[in-house]
Amino acid sequence: MSGLIVMKFGGTSVADAERIKRAARRIVDKRELGNRVVAVLSARGKTTDELIAMAEEVSDAPDPREMDMLLSTGERISCALCAMAINDLGHRAISLTGSQAGIVTDESHTKARIIDVRADRIKAALEENNVVLVAGFQGVSGTARNVTTLGRGGSDTTAVAVAAALGAEVCEIYTDVSGVYTADPRIVPDARKLATVSFEEMLEMAASGAGVLQLRSVEYARNHGVRIHCRSSFEEAPGTVVVAEGETMEQPLITAVTHSTSEARVTLIGVPDEPGAAARIFAALADVSINVDMIVQNEPSSAGGKAEISFTVPREDLRAARAALEPLTGDAFVELHTYEQMGKVSIIGAGMRSHPGVAAKVFDVLAQEGVNIDMISTSPIKISCVIDRDRVAQAVQLLHSAFELSGPGTVAEEKPFKARQTL
Amino acid sequence: MSGLIVMKFGGTSVADAERIKRAARRIVDKRELGNRVVAVLSARGKTTDELIAMAEEVSDAPDPREMDMLLSTGERISCALCAMAINDLGHRAISLTGSQAGIVTDESHTKARIIDVRADRIKAALEENNVVLVAGFQGVSGTARNVTTLGRGGSDTTAVAVAAALGAEVCEIYTDVSGVYTADPRIVPDARKLATVSFEEMLEMAASGAGVLQLRSVEYARNHGVRIHCRSSFEEAPGTVVVAEGETMEQPLITAVTHSTSEARVTLIGVPDEPGAAARIFAALADVSINVDMIVQNEPSSAGGKAEISFTVPREDLRAARAALEPLTGDAFVELHTYEQMGKVSIIGAGMRSHPGVAAKVFDVLAQEGVNIDMISTSPIKISCVIDRDRVAQAVQLLHSAFELSGPGTVAEEKPFKARQTL
Repeated sequence: MSGLIVMKFGGTSVADAERIKRAARRIVDKRELGNRVVAVLSARGKTTDELIAMAEEVSDAPDPREMDMLLSTGERISCALCAMAINDLGHRAISLTGSQAGIVTDESHTKARIIDVRADRIKAALEENNVVLVAGFQGVSGTARNVTTLGRGGSDTTAVAVAAALGAEVCEIYTDVSGVYTADPRIVPDARKLATVSFEEMLEMAASGAGVLQLRSVEYARNHGVRIHCRSSFEEAPGTVVVAEGETMEQPLITAVTHSTSEARVTLIGVPDEPGAAARIFAALADVSINVDMIVQNEPSSAGGKAEISFTVPREDLRAARAALEPLTGDAFVELHTYEQMGKVSIIGAGMRSHPGVAAKVFDVLAQEGVNIDMISTSPIKISCVIDRDRVAQAVQLLHSAFELSGPGTVAEEKPFKARQTL
Repeated sequence: MSGLIVMKFGGTSVADAERIKRAARRIVDKRELGNRVVAVLSARGKTTDELIAMAEEVSDAPDPREMDMLLSTGERISCALCAMAINDLGHRAISLTGSQAGIVTDESHTKARIIDVRADRIKAALEENNVVLVAGFQGVSGTARNVTTLGRGGSDTTAVAVAAALGAEVCEIYTDVSGVYTADPRIVPDARKLATVSFEEMLEMAASGAGVLQLRSVEYARNHGVRIHCRSSFEEAPGTVVVAEGETMEQPLITAVTHSTSEARVTLIGVPDEPGAAARIFAALADVSINVDMIVQNEPSSAGGKAEISFTVPREDLRAARAALEPLTGDAFVELHTYEQMGKVSIIGAGMRSHPGVAAKVFDVLAQEGVNIDMISTSPIKISCVIDRDRVAQAVQLLHSAFELSGPGTVAEEKPFKARQTL
């Protein structure tokens, strides 16, 4: 289909009646330019948290199938309300549940993966000149026909998957920030909005703390060649387009500095130097679905000696990690130590591939200001350093400045935060 | 299926976490007695009102299809939460939306009628030893596959329809009252709880103000031979069983006195005495779905004269009735008068059929105390009198006493309101 656009509005963009009407107005504006429009909506503001609180009131360990039945109502409410608002503006709109929209997933309740989009009903509704509103974050399982949800941030993935299935021109992700920045503007006031960013860079950014786009949605977009335009719900200026690497205008050495302040480190001392010890440790963590980020292993000093393994996990998973590992004490390791107040700073840039000196510069910049680097991990386009949580803001500022990321950017002209402040 | 019970819990019975857990406990109790159980749930407490308020915030005239999409979320939330609570009690439970449960309706959004129950999925879930929770009040339209709702009180109809489709032993309707009474106990403190009542009587009672059961659900139960047991969520004592007329233990002259305080009267003066005049009037009202209750027409005094037509409508529909009729002024009638503060008192009893003197006694009792009767309508088992709204309570008390309905009843032993008071 030509002239077909998918628009996705996040929770803050549909948080109350005024914002729903504003989203409806933006959808109608696109429609009046001659486009066919599918809009994917998240649950309103705090709805999902409220539903989770209700579940916790009735059950200590809510059944995952029922959790999905419960949580999926939030996006349906947003869609129905937005459809009403669009109808009031003189355009036809219908809302579809994830199931009605043909979002078919596997059976993994609360963290399902999309396996197919059977978009017949969306297409038919578009043919009848409807704006189609699709409830984000949810689908229906292929065999058991149960309602499933895609996990936090899943609406981005819904939008990208629908865009891929329909061959949409672009998938516009509307949020409360106006695009992807060279760093978090709350920490670096002169951070620059990027006009474009490559899929590879965006993946590294999403994985290392940039909250703008959900990692899985970027992967899906890359795999299916969907063009993502990440922009603000509250202003008209264009945001950041995520494109294939060949499409980027320029290839700067460093594109952005990202960070996270919610890391925890686990160190296991006395791991036997034999095949399978590390495998047992990480299998125990995988069994409880803990996402291990960085892993460092020290070589044992002598034959038959013991190694030391350190790794990081999201701080919220630390308790579960400890619970999963403690039964292995004395067997897979001797002692377990944890450090809760860790953070991470990363620099990302496709240009890094051909410039070997970047890592050295990062270490130098941090060392000069006495920021101690605890762990390091690298990819061809990323360098991440685990550091103390309370040095993170300073480290971001130092690196942003050292790699001259502010430059004569788009910030001054576009005033990306003006709209937010007047809300 | 044998040993199969349908239980329906209304909005007040699932209003908060404690009540949901209590409903779950009652369901599990039935299950542990060896029954297979399907439970139909309403939306929690004020949820439906809150959703309607949200819709009115975004739209002056919410689209009915989208209204149904919105409102249907309330019952899904109740069902998912109750399923979690049952799972916590060590039993398996799954919740189904109206669509998943196979509740197929016509396309009339916000007031759909059930046309079929395709209960395959419910049956399969029962076979797998699940308690099945079905979202009340909703279905899916047969051709367009849209979510529909059945109108206020529709969950009773869902429960009866599911009971009919499964051939359940009984459909238990749990509410915040403990059964059907000879009169509203708030007005007549010594009103007696009825052990049984016939479908015909229950239909007349539901139509004339008794709020315990929804009229449509009683009709459906009669047509499909479903046994309804109307009882309290908050106590164990049996309530009232609605049975076929042959099954009632006794056939008293009068079974109950019902009332309504929300009537309005419309009087049209100068209606031409020609074929079609009345038809035009009531067609205009039917077009806007106004339910006309009682109709009285005075004969014109001479040939070519004009008649006077009076009728009652629910007070909430009076404004719409006036708007529908005013365009006909000068054509179908000369003047339109309205009286807002009307009420209605009715006596109901299958035994009335063989006792012609009942009407005379009603008029006499009311006349002795100076209660003016404005309009009268009768059926073989009911006499209704439209009177001033502020005489309704007195009229109920007079008739309840005159027909000796309190008698040595079940009230004293069962203390039906004790449980409510201690809540």
